[in-house]
Amino acid sequence: MLQRLDYSDADFYAELNKLLHRDTGHDDAVKQAVGSIIAEVRSRGDQAVIEYTGKFDQHPVSCMEALQLDAQTIVDSLDRLDDGLRTCLESAAGRIRTFHQQEMLHSWSYTEADGTKLGQIVSAMDRVGVYVPGGKAAYPSSALMTVIPAKVAGVNEIIMTAPAPGGEINDAVIAAAHIAGVDRIFTIGGAQAVAAMAYGTETIPRVDKIVGPGNTWVTTAKKMVFGDVGIDMIAGPSEVVVICDDSANPDWVAMDLFAQAEHDELAQSIAITPSKSMIDRITQSIDKLLDQMLRAEIIRSSLTANGGLVLVNSLAQAMEVANHIAPEHLELMVENADDLIGQVKHAGAIFAGKYSAEVLGDYCAGPNHVLPTSGTARFSSPLGVYDFQKRSSMIQISEQGANQMAKTAAVLAHSEGLTAHEQSARYRLRS
Amino acid sequence: MLQRLDYSDADFYAELNKLLHRDTGHDDAVKQAVGSIIAEVRSRGDQAVIEYTGKFDQHPVSCMEALQLDAQTIVDSLDRLDDGLRTCLESAAGRIRTFHQQEMLHSWSYTEADGTKLGQIVSAMDRVGVYVPGGKAAYPSSALMTVIPAKVAGVNEIIMTAPAPGGEINDAVIAAAHIAGVDRIFTIGGAQAVAAMAYGTETIPRVDKIVGPGNTWVTTAKKMVFGDVGIDMIAGPSEVVVICDDSANPDWVAMDLFAQAEHDELAQSIAITPSKSMIDRITQSIDKLLDQMLRAEIIRSSLTANGGLVLVNSLAQAMEVANHIAPEHLELMVENADDLIGQVKHAGAIFAGKYSAEVLGDYCAGPNHVLPTSGTARFSSPLGVYDFQKRSSMIQISEQGANQMAKTAAVLAHSEGLTAHEQSARYRLRS
Repeated sequence: MLQRLDYSDADFYAELNKLLHRDTGHDDAVKQAVGSIIAEVRSRGDQAVIEYTGKFDQHPVSCMEALQLDAQTIVDSLDRLDDGLRTCLESAAGRIRTFHQQEMLHSWSYTEADGTKLGQIVSAMDRVGVYVPGGKAAYPSSALMTVIPAKVAGVNEIIMTAPAPGGEINDAVIAAAHIAGVDRIFTIGGAQAVAAMAYGTETIPRVDKIVGPGNTWVTTAKKMVFGDVGIDMIAGPSEVVVICDDSANPDWVAMDLFAQAEHDELAQSIAITPSKSMIDRITQSIDKLLDQMLRAEIIRSSLTANGGLVLVNSLAQAMEVANHIAPEHLELMVENADDLIGQVKHAGAIFAGKYSAEVLGDYCAGPNHVLPTSGTARFSSPLGVYDFQKRSSMIQISEQGANQMAKTAAVLAHSEGLTAHEQSARYRLRS
Repeated sequence: MLQRLDYSDADFYAELNKLLHRDTGHDDAVKQAVGSIIAEVRSRGDQAVIEYTGKFDQHPVSCMEALQLDAQTIVDSLDRLDDGLRTCLESAAGRIRTFHQQEMLHSWSYTEADGTKLGQIVSAMDRVGVYVPGGKAAYPSSALMTVIPAKVAGVNEIIMTAPAPGGEINDAVIAAAHIAGVDRIFTIGGAQAVAAMAYGTETIPRVDKIVGPGNTWVTTAKKMVFGDVGIDMIAGPSEVVVICDDSANPDWVAMDLFAQAEHDELAQSIAITPSKSMIDRITQSIDKLLDQMLRAEIIRSSLTANGGLVLVNSLAQAMEVANHIAPEHLELMVENADDLIGQVKHAGAIFAGKYSAEVLGDYCAGPNHVLPTSGTARFSSPLGVYDFQKRSSMIQISEQGANQMAKTAAVLAHSEGLTAHEQSARYRLRS
């Protein structure tokens, strides 16, 4: 079912790149449709949002108030959960909060001998919007993972949008958002939710940044509004790379590949090992375990279309391949995982050792599960508290400091032909 | 020449917003042209870059080698500078380096009682591209401000592109890039340079992130390639807000407004003061000093189209207005600047006190001069070392830790109907 690749083959990297098929498909039809949704929401506000919600979410309402959850409904969602689930959400939230508190950026400054003081002031954003998918991809954990870092950062107001297809609200999602500390929830989704948060409507306030995962419509809209508002990242399908040696339990490897694949057909699961027999054992485990899964069909489609079993000659080669992929999730299910951690160059999150199942990270280990996909770990980072903070440079130059710097600045400004710059500097020279 | 606004007027904020005219003009013609340049560079590589460079930069060459500066040319650029300029560039580079070293992010981790270890590994990007404008906006300081933070971050290879209109190279720009530590320089520009760095050509290597200021073509291209490659920000016209009281020297205020305005006609210069007489005095200084400026015409156009003199009732109101604007540069030319710093909510850089001229920050104070414009200081930060670093989450769960977390994860996975997630967690329970 999974494609087999061998590092020793001459065309290995060509075959691997084909499997990764990361050539971004810029879908012009989606772009055009999203562009017109954004334009409509900008010009007609609430009314446009109401219309799109009726059309795309089969959720017809007559006024915007019907698309905002009141405070009581949000609080009550907690009571509608069974106790076990509520305890687990609260325990997960606690661990996530603890981890994210470590991510806080802090202001800093230093003072030079002549009294000049330089530094950066770090502050929280005023208002942010969190997008949480609805429908089949509605996960309470997504609400925890997006709202908690904003709350820890000290954001003044956190807005959440989560579509309610057919008008149906997912209590666990709402409860998780409440536990995390959300301020307002709108049951809208898609490009219209992104546009509403980016530009504001009569009812929905304009936010400074929009974060969170979503489908093609949502990510296309996020990319389009980027610049007018901040966004976290352009997320693609989820992916895992599992590096394993003979010490790994092939059932565990197979199940971890399944866990990734069950998200959706586009998800990608790849195992890399220097053990030829391990590839066979993983295959046997897959065959044995697949039919027991509720989402067996999705898993089968995903593994068939995007799954890979890669044979390498050494763990060093395995790391080379993993760094080429720059995966969202990297599991190191090997005897001595510590030895490999230092060789990781690009990965959203590293799960080291057999007990570090990626699914524990999905829910409750603490680190964020919103991670860079499709190789973007080369240049981007997990969603974090720092995504909700911003820096201002702070420059307090002393009279003596200005006397020095103004000489340098005047020469450079003169060379650039900027006489106002030059004169502004010269005014600060000691007379 | 500058528009006068009064906070006491009923329609003050409406008038101010009109002056700011930040409604992003999405220029479809530019987008379409840039889209086709990107497509051509992706499909035809070097040849397309050569053609566009001949067409847009009047810089015809027969092969790509003619568009890359060899190492000797780069080194020699230093010798072609006069000694004073070279000393100033080196002194500025030193101060910029010192400041940026403070910005480094570092890896961190913590270990829980049961042995579970969590943290983030921070590392530098592999290869980045720095865009430096050519022509009338070619500033050596831009090369220092973009290359130095990448170098401090530890980026392996730093590529710079700077167009050479008519084939003419700006020695000071090249020398500054060399002082800053650039690795390779291509004399190309515009959307074609952005596309070449984003996707790679036969000669130009693909980079992980593209940073630096540019015109509409460059920023449109950066927005389009974003996601396939990282970018720093979408920069608009430069702007300054000067808050001043009666203690300020009106000549200094006028000159600082000029310095911003002389960049180009689109630049915006706004003074805010609770002193009615100060507004008159600034106006007199403007009238007195303007004709002495080499770029008097550009300054006049800019101040007429975008300049503002805002009368408020108190410094607290001045801060309220400044926070509404969220300016790129904020000068606090008041008696007690320290008192105001704590009231700044949104600004790219704060220049506190009369000796803290914005132009000193442009060149040599130390902080970066690539700053968020057009109100994006609400959610973004100065270019910095952190722009060239990325984080990977690190998760090492102990056997005991897994036993706890797997229970939580299994319950949450079960509630989401994800049986592979649930089983993956259950495997990690103590048997």
